[in-house]
Amino acid sequence: MRKILKAILPFGFKANGIACGLKKTGKLDLALLYSEFPAIACAKFTTSSIIAAPLVVSKQHLKVARDFRAVIINSGNANCFTGKAGIKDALLTARYLAEKLKIPTRSVLVNSTGIIGKRLDILKIKKMIPELVQGLSTAGIVKAQKAIMTTDTFAKEISLTLRIGSGEIHICAIAKGAGMIAPNMATVLCFIMTDAAITSKALDKALSGAVDKSFNCISVDGCMSTNDTVLALANGVAGNVPISGGKALAFFSNAIETVCLELARMVILDAEGATKFIQIDVVQAKNWHQARRVALNIANSALFKTAIFGENPNFGRVVAAIGASGIKIREDQLKIRLGSLKSKQVRLWVSLSCGKAKCTVFTSDLTPRYIKINAAYN
Amino acid sequence: MRKILKAILPFGFKANGIACGLKKTGKLDLALLYSEFPAIACAKFTTSSIIAAPLVVSKQHLKVARDFRAVIINSGNANCFTGKAGIKDALLTARYLAEKLKIPTRSVLVNSTGIIGKRLDILKIKKMIPELVQGLSTAGIVKAQKAIMTTDTFAKEISLTLRIGSGEIHICAIAKGAGMIAPNMATVLCFIMTDAAITSKALDKALSGAVDKSFNCISVDGCMSTNDTVLALANGVAGNVPISGGKALAFFSNAIETVCLELARMVILDAEGATKFIQIDVVQAKNWHQARRVALNIANSALFKTAIFGENPNFGRVVAAIGASGIKIREDQLKIRLGSLKSKQVRLWVSLSCGKAKCTVFTSDLTPRYIKINAAYN
Repeated sequence: MRKILKAILPFGFKANGIACGLKKTGKLDLALLYSEFPAIACAKFTTSSIIAAPLVVSKQHLKVARDFRAVIINSGNANCFTGKAGIKDALLTARYLAEKLKIPTRSVLVNSTGIIGKRLDILKIKKMIPELVQGLSTAGIVKAQKAIMTTDTFAKEISLTLRIGSGEIHICAIAKGAGMIAPNMATVLCFIMTDAAITSKALDKALSGAVDKSFNCISVDGCMSTNDTVLALANGVAGNVPISGGKALAFFSNAIETVCLELARMVILDAEGATKFIQIDVVQAKNWHQARRVALNIANSALFKTAIFGENPNFGRVVAAIGASGIKIREDQLKIRLGSLKSKQVRLWVSLSCGKAKCTVFTSDLTPRYIKINAAYN
Repeated sequence: MRKILKAILPFGFKANGIACGLKKTGKLDLALLYSEFPAIACAKFTTSSIIAAPLVVSKQHLKVARDFRAVIINSGNANCFTGKAGIKDALLTARYLAEKLKIPTRSVLVNSTGIIGKRLDILKIKKMIPELVQGLSTAGIVKAQKAIMTTDTFAKEISLTLRIGSGEIHICAIAKGAGMIAPNMATVLCFIMTDAAITSKALDKALSGAVDKSFNCISVDGCMSTNDTVLALANGVAGNVPISGGKALAFFSNAIETVCLELARMVILDAEGATKFIQIDVVQAKNWHQARRVALNIANSALFKTAIFGENPNFGRVVAAIGASGIKIREDQLKIRLGSLKSKQVRLWVSLSCGKAKCTVFTSDLTPRYIKINAAYN
């Protein structure tokens, strides 16, 4: 497995990013990911009961289609809490693009990130779709990456080459997300593209496992977005024997997990206002779910996060957060070790002494700058 | 019902507060509440799986005794995460006091608040118990109130007189808690004393309902303490027909709810670093539990709290918090109204349009000063 922290598109993919005027700053705000051949897709979405309009449309397309060709993403507006009009806007975005690409509307997936509760300016998008399509290229992934950013301070991208059987497959992924940021909750979006031939079932299995151990194990403050999406597209151009299980799927799953974990770590590294990158290892748990629950409860404790900001080795706050997690534990089973608080990377280690499972969660500290950023009106 | 925001002990109660040296500042840190006649007691404790040693002892006494005479509370040390030694310390505190008062040890309830994870200096307490007992008086409630405070900036106390049948009964309650504060999580402690004659079952029913609608409906940041306690003592000195149900219990329950609600509001008014007192009314819910879940999810959203601090009317954050609460709701059912953000008191009103239940939750904003306070090492 060769890994590089840059976006290099797998065979058969092109991309582009342009400015269509949704961001007041004039920065890039419309991205297109395109596969020259039909790709299968699977996705993990936010579990919020209120989800953004583009997710409603994408979920519908994922149900009916197996021949995906394009993903269009806008930043600057989340198209959420916009009612039926919002769903129509998301659908129109897909339709305008499908017409231009001469593909079925169902082959287009849509996504948005930005402010909640405002109608999307669909005419701005419509007007720029020809230019967006015309500019598609393999190098265009750089612009696409920029166009999905909101207040991210650096690009989150990774590419992998993986030997499977006698050939090679490629995976490339880009992500956005910078914790909780103005103008609204920063959504985590992640798009994974691969030229691997793989069955839908195997792709879903690989993605589920990877997301659980990466994007579901990071937290800035426990808030969930209405737009969170991790999407994987596989177009089979590599021509490998389709991955459906066994060793090949194990290799592939491991690669997808690496991709997701690296990107999830980058999101936490970019968390707004943060001064610390905190790794919480909960070990000797009864099972992974218990370990994760304890780790996330600590990660979401404002008191713990504030203590780390203050470089204050306050064990009491860790104990209280574990107790509040609701798991049954006796205090004499609990072992807590906290690494040095002086460096930017801080490690907390908690042993529950009741099993062999473990989980690692990444989080950031809670700082006055986080509040300053999020208190501002936009 | 006559209400006064001062502590006036009901008949048959005395109190005292002294400094025994647990607080480095030399401030009052040991409180005693005393009933001249055996009282029944009931309590609501933290649901944390890790609870402080005095709670272990008090729970045990509540199981076996019906003749309570005293509650001893220290501040400056939570006696939590202190293992078997901590439980022994809590038991010794009860025993030393019982010996001095010539009552059974089971008639003493104990409580602590302060730093987690450090042994209690039991000798300091033992040495001062004679003076603590000697100074008992009806006016001593003022000193007891001071002795349970940690970083509270004002006393939280209330007294009620209630006509039941042809006579009057009295209720007095004191509380401590100021949100999340240094040196550790601020515990909410509340002690209610009444001279009413009431059955244990009726007292428990009144207290459960009151706590649910008051202390269980406030949040500074969703963290739960290891020491949270609301305790009620009733000594029957008023000589009324014992309250066991019907109208009398309804009146009494209403009075206990008023007491708890006023004190819970004071805790939020005193929340460390806060600049806003926020009332969240969730109405037209399917049931009270649904309303409370939505209201608490908003109250615990760092993004929402930060927006209120910034006087930023950000509806998107309210929508996202509601969605993340996990309740099933369509966005077209949702109505949100936010009052003026310019004043210290802010009101948010959310209608779920799916029933007739409602719940009110009180919370505070999240501010840079909160972080500054909690980041400091103590």
